[in-house]
Parts: sequence; structure tokens; C-alpha cells
Amino acid sequence: MEEKKVAKMEDIVSFCKRRGFIFPTSEIYGGLANSYSYGPYGTELKNNIKKMWWKKFVQKREDIVGMDGPILLNTKLWEASGHIGGFNDASVDCKNCKKRFRADHIVKELTGEDMEGELEKMTKTLQAGLKCPECGKSDWTEVRNMSQMFQTEMNSVDGPIYLRPETAGAIFSDYKNIIDSMRVKIPFGVAQIGKAFRNEIVARNFIFRIREFEQMEIEYFIKPETDWEPLFEKWLDEQEEFALSLGAKKEDLRRYEHPKAKLSHYSKKTIDTEYNFPFGFGELFGLAHRGDFDLTQHSKFSGQKLEYFDPVTNERFTPHVLEPTVGLDRLILTAICAGYTEEKLEDGERIVMKFPNTVAPIKVAVFPLMKNKPELVAKAKEIFQNLSEDFMCEFDDNGNVGKRYRRQDEIGTPYCVTVDFDSLEDSTVTVRDRDTMQQERIAISELQKYFGEKLK
Amino acid sequence: MEEKKVAKMEDIVSFCKRRGFIFPTSEIYGGLANSYSYGPYGTELKNNIKKMWWKKFVQKREDIVGMDGPILLNTKLWEASGHIGGFNDASVDCKNCKKRFRADHIVKELTGEDMEGELEKMTKTLQAGLKCPECGKSDWTEVRNMSQMFQTEMNSVDGPIYLRPETAGAIFSDYKNIIDSMRVKIPFGVAQIGKAFRNEIVARNFIFRIREFEQMEIEYFIKPETDWEPLFEKWLDEQEEFALSLGAKKEDLRRYEHPKAKLSHYSKKTIDTEYNFPFGFGELFGLAHRGDFDLTQHSKFSGQKLEYFDPVTNERFTPHVLEPTVGLDRLILTAICAGYTEEKLEDGERIVMKFPNTVAPIKVAVFPLMKNKPELVAKAKEIFQNLSEDFMCEFDDNGNVGKRYRRQDEIGTPYCVTVDFDSLEDSTVTVRDRDTMQQERIAISELQKYFGEKLK
Repeated sequence: MEEKKVAKMEDIVSFCKRRGFIFPTSEIYGGLANSYSYGPYGTELKNNIKKMWWKKFVQKREDIVGMDGPILLNTKLWEASGHIGGFNDASVDCKNCKKRFRADHIVKELTGEDMEGELEKMTKTLQAGLKCPECGKSDWTEVRNMSQMFQTEMNSVDGPIYLRPETAGAIFSDYKNIIDSMRVKIPFGVAQIGKAFRNEIVARNFIFRIREFEQMEIEYFIKPETDWEPLFEKWLDEQEEFALSLGAKKEDLRRYEHPKAKLSHYSKKTIDTEYNFPFGFGELFGLAHRGDFDLTQHSKFSGQKLEYFDPVTNERFTPHVLEPTVGLDRLILTAICAGYTEEKLEDGERIVMKFPNTVAPIKVAVFPLMKNKPELVAKAKEIFQNLSEDFMCEFDDNGNVGKRYRRQDEIGTPYCVTVDFDSLEDSTVTVRDRDTMQQERIAISELQKYFGEKLK
Repeated sequence: MEEKKVAKMEDIVSFCKRRGFIFPTSEIYGGLANSYSYGPYGTELKNNIKKMWWKKFVQKREDIVGMDGPILLNTKLWEASGHIGGFNDASVDCKNCKKRFRADHIVKELTGEDMEGELEKMTKTLQAGLKCPECGKSDWTEVRNMSQMFQTEMNSVDGPIYLRPETAGAIFSDYKNIIDSMRVKIPFGVAQIGKAFRNEIVARNFIFRIREFEQMEIEYFIKPETDWEPLFEKWLDEQEEFALSLGAKKEDLRRYEHPKAKLSHYSKKTIDTEYNFPFGFGELFGLAHRGDFDLTQHSKFSGQKLEYFDPVTNERFTPHVLEPTVGLDRLILTAICAGYTEEKLEDGERIVMKFPNTVAPIKVAVFPLMKNKPELVAKAKEIFQNLSEDFMCEFDDNGNVGKRYRRQDEIGTPYCVTVDFDSLEDSTVTVRDRDTMQQERIAISELQKYFGEKLK
């Protein structure tokens, strides 16, 4: 058979909507600025990726604990972290057509020059006669900094509060409570999965850049004098390993090291792991050595000591931190792009999502050969009931079995079980494999164990 | 041994902080108005309850699919649902001490009379000389309606947008996409877990009433002419069953039926399931028959047909809906209150969290008998590695084994495994049971299977 990986985002976007993975949100009301809902299969996929991440980085590790903080936090936290005042995008409007642009992006697009951060220079350059790519006029506002923070107000709290622009803040501000309540031994990490919000000027590329997104972040605390470079390398490898476990191919991953000149003053090193999406390489994972910047800032702004006491050496110090972070929505998009396959078969074509078993939203589909034979349906329902105790399953009795296989291929179900008339005689069923399309007969009494091993 | 269930919230609150379940959030900055972070054990507990709910109501059911919509949705959705304009609390301020009260609550507290909804009458009553319980003066503002919606703004969207006050809205507005992409057969349900936000005037009772909380909601769509009362009863039973599976005792649960006079005009019936918290009975689950109100409203406001086509009868109709809903944070509080036990033993006292095995944050703790014997530590680490492939485990080598048992009892770990010198000889370990405190020797090679059965 002949395989073809599609390179077009439109195919992915329309596939995701048609097959219940990802919908434009509030679509009946005209949607909402590049916002999406996860449909039934997308939600299972998302839950699977969360579970895989938690298992790898929390459950299986002695040195990492989880936490789950709120989206609305004390505003002083964002003063300490530098987000208030500092978390801006340069924005410019075309006065003629009212369209808003990221100023540095539009300047780069029109001139090829990178003027990021130089507001006045960008204003001058644009106003010198550059034309709006939308309407062709040259009628620009000044370039200004726009905060990326979503702002709101809360009863019984004075002043504005913000939707967190990243999850890491809650880890640092709860650091003391975690140290005091858990017997963590340095080096140790704190992991968190949760929503973050950034009021981007332009959101785009489907779920790659959205304003409401989910992060999976770890702050890994180390002794300041640690020989951190091997640890840093290990984290990079583990991030890559995680991407591979979602089905990404190694040749579609690459590392991008932030040049020294563009590093935050406190960072010793930052490396992104990028994935080759249909629209080009884009950041998946970030890994940064942040030194003691965060704990020191929060200590300064809160007046609390945020140190670690080492009972082995009797030392008290402010740990340094490695920060491995990843956008969950981008991992979902990676799994979908990596899995999406169009195949030419001898008897036609199929779309098949080649998800690894742990990633697949539905693990087993159960079919009665015919829907109008009550004894087949009853047996198939019984098998569905038993298997769904352990696995996410789907029951389908609609249309011929060939069509049902195609539907399950499209959502990436690794195994289909068909109950036929022989099943009623000899208590076996046909199990069909998604990738090889091979079928074998398995005893019904062995199914739980069979899938237990296959789907481990 | 003698058991005592505590009745005081203070004990629960301080226990939760001390033992890494729940912290006041942003505490180093003075906290944030009744907001909390889940610590490492609280996060595991939360994840377990989510998994249990998803397994019972999505995985094991052929008729329910999941979804996951965003917090920020199109504002028209909240016009259609009646939240804009209608989702208010009556509020009144004391001009002298600046404290804000829920007007109906304070009036009821001071007069015993229920004047909910009667703003003018409440204003007159208060201004006739009732004294502020905070400062003793009588200097009240007018009673006004305050929206419970958190408001913000989004780039590229005109006008205000809101943080969703409930998760149900996304289910109704994605109904069409779900119908179109999934082959759901009526009756069917759509389930969702996610954050919702209500700007309560007064938040209180720890995590019972918080402004940012997590809901687990199902919309269960039925034919309009369905004989719904047996179905309604079945849902009530399933909600109760779920509470029992978290460790709640049947005698601590009761049902409260909303009186006809206070029902929303569209609701045929609403019953809450309440739990007996240390501060009294409070709502856990809600169950409402909402008729076709929601789909009809969204259809009217969006101009889209939101019907169901029944391929069996060839009919097209707007389904009615049963809405079983529950607050996840309240379930967590239930599991903690139900589990918290102080026991007098022959040789002292212990606090033990009597969580059911599925609920317990840590399933197995692994100890080397002594931390300074490398061969014991190595063997214990090996066992930890193997078990943590399947279960959330903890490794502890700190202090004597008796103290370690007490620490694990306090966080509700069902089993402790100790590696001693005999283990090195005969490859067995001691497994100790949390509740009975009995110990038995188990072969190391049998542990995975042993716990696999116990922790199913």
C-alpha cells in the first residue's frame, strides 16, 4: 500500500471537525476569534496525553510531585514575575481598514528587518509609506505596547486581577507550602497541568496559537552549584522521548537554541524543541535554566524566605531551577499531524490515524455482524460491557463491517472486534488490526487479557 | 480501637494545609479571597475523582460521549442562556465599614424573613435602622443586583466577553457539531469536566463555595414524549452511588426537592443531593429536567436548527434534557471529610484518612527498613520503580518505620511495603494494611499482581 502524509492544514482542520476531534467553539454564534472546543475523540486524545505526561514525569518519578493552582491569583505575583508592565506585544493598527497587526511581524514581513522591541523605529518605518497588506493604504497608528494579560475584577479584592499568562507562577508562589508539607529532597520538581491565557494580537494556525491554552510545566529545583549541563541534556532527551511516544518521527523534530543576545538576563540557556507542522517548524517544548531569578523575585516582593534547607549538609540556600515546559494543545496537534495518513489500498483508499495505542482515543470497537440479529447484538453488548471496564470502547452496528472498519481507521482505533454466527457456536470473535488490517480469531474469554497486553 | 470523626472545619482546613492536600493560594502574598491551590496529594485525589467519574459516566456507557470546551465563549451564548442580565446576586454595602453583604442573606439573618428578589423591600427594611453586624452602625447603600459574571476583553473581539459561569453552555452550543460528527442515538448524553467562574459576593466554607471551581456536568438528551420519571430516579441513584464510592456514608446524604414555586419556569423537577459537611448539609449534586429550554433558546438566538433526526422513526424534533451536575471541589471536600478519622490505639493515637482505594492519592508506600544500608535501599528503589509503573507510589526512608506508617495513614495510603534483611534472603517483603494495621509477608515477584487485585 502507498502512504501519503498530507502537508495541508486545511485537511487537518476539516478532518478534525468532521470526525469529532476539534470544533470551532460557539460556531452557531459565528465562533470566537480562533477558539476551539475538543469534541468527543479530541477530549479522549487530550486526556490520554495528559495521563501519559503525568505517568512519565510524576507517577514514575520519585523526585517530582504534582500540584494544581487556580487561574486567578494574587496580582502581586505578576508584579514580582515581571508580567505586569513587561508582558507586551508591539501592536499597530491600520487606520483605514482597522486591522490590527503585531508590529514587529508586519515590519519584518514588509522590510525583512527584525526591529523587535524598537517601537519608535518601527513607527517611523511604517509611517514612511509602507502599505497595509490588507487594504493597500499607508495610514498607520503609532506602534504601542499592548499587554498580553487578560484583566478582570473580583469581589472583595481591590484593583484588577488577571487570568494567569502561564502556570509556572503558581508553582513558585506555592513553593513554600510544598516545601513545608512534603518531604522533598533536592533535586526535586513540581509539575502542573492547567489553562493559561494570553491575549495575542493575532492567533493562528488552528490550535497552535490560541489565546486560551493548556500548559504542562515542571519547575525542577537544583542546588546552585550543581553541574547542570548533563541534567539539562537529560531533560531535552526526555522531552524528545515524549514527542516520539505520541507518534512524532525523529526527523520531524529539531532543537533551537536561543542566541545569547536574545536570552532573558537571568537565563543561562534556553532550548526549544520544535515540530515540523504542515505550516513549518513550530515550538513544542521549551527548556530553560532560569537560575534563582523566580524564587529571588518572589522572595523580594513577598518578604518571605523562599529557601531550601538541606538536612544532609545543614545548608540553607535558594535553589536554581530548570524549567521544562510544553503546550498541551500543540502536543495534540502533533499527535494528529503525525498520525494522519492517506493510504491507497488494493480496493480503494482510506484515511487512517496511525496513533500509538496509548494515544488512540478509542482502544477497541465492538461490532455485531448484523444489527437485526438480537443474539449477535446481545453478545456484542456483553463484550462491550466487559471491555469497557478497562478500555475506552465504542459499540457500532451501523452499515456493513467494511464501512465500520473505515470509520474506526479514521479515528485511529487500534482494534475492532466482530461478533458473528460462529461466535455463538465456538465463543470466538474476529479481532482486526488497524495497521496491518490482518484478522485473527480470539476466544471471548481471552479478550480482556489479550487487549490488556496489547494496550499496555 | 476508638474512632472519632471530627466535626470542625478548622481541623480539616489545617490538616489539608499541613499534609499537602490544599493550600490557600498565593499565600506568601496574603492569599486571594478564599482561593486555594491543590497540593501534591490534593491533586492526586482530584485526578482520581475525575477518572472515577469519567469511567462511570463516559467510559463504561455506550450512550455518553465527552467533550471539552473553552472557558471563554461567544458572548451571545450567555445572552441566549439568560446569564447576561439575569445571573445576579442582590448586594448591599455598609457605608460606614465598607463591608459588602449578600442582601437577602443579611436581611434573613437580621429579620428572619426571606425577601430574596425583592430589592426595594430589602433596602427599606435595612435602612429602617437594621445594624451592620460588622460595625454596629446603620448606614446602608441601596440594595442592587450585581452580576456574578467575570468580565474581560479579547483582542479582535468587540465588546465584553465573560469567563463561563457554568460548563453546560459549551455543551449546548456544540450540540450541533456533536450530532453531526458522532453517530449518537437518542437517548444520549454529553459529559464535560471543566472550570467555571462565579463572582460571588461572599465566598466561604473552604473549598465549598469558591469563585473559581470545577464542574462535572452531563446533558442527557431524551425524546420529548419519554416517560422521564424512572430515568430521573435512575440518575439520582447513580449520583448517590458515586458519592458512596468516594467514602460518603449513606446517612450523611439527603435529597432536597426544589419547591414548585421556586423552580425556573422551564424546569419540570429539580432535586439536589446534599452531604452533611461539618458546617451542615450543603449541595453536592444537582439534577434538573430542563425540558427543551436550552436548545430552543440557542436555536432562537443563533438562527440555527438544533434538532435531532431519528433514523428509526424518521422524526425530527428538539430533544428534552436531564441535567445531572456536580461540583468537583465539593466532591473532594466530601472525600476528605468522610475519610478523616481520629483513632485511639493501644499505643497512642493516629489520624487516618480512610479513603477507598480508588480515591487514595498514594496507593503504595515503599520503605527500606534502614536508610544507611545500601542493599536495602537498592532493593526498595527497585520495588518502587516496578510498582510505580502501575500505581502512584511513594518512597520513604526517613525515621523509624512506625513513624512512616503514621505519615502514610495520615494521607490515606492503603498499603505500605517494607524491605528488611529477610527480604534480601527470601525475596519477600512486609505488606501492611492501613485500616487493620495487619502485616503479611508477600513474595516480591507477586507484588504487582497482589496490588493489581487489591487496587482494581
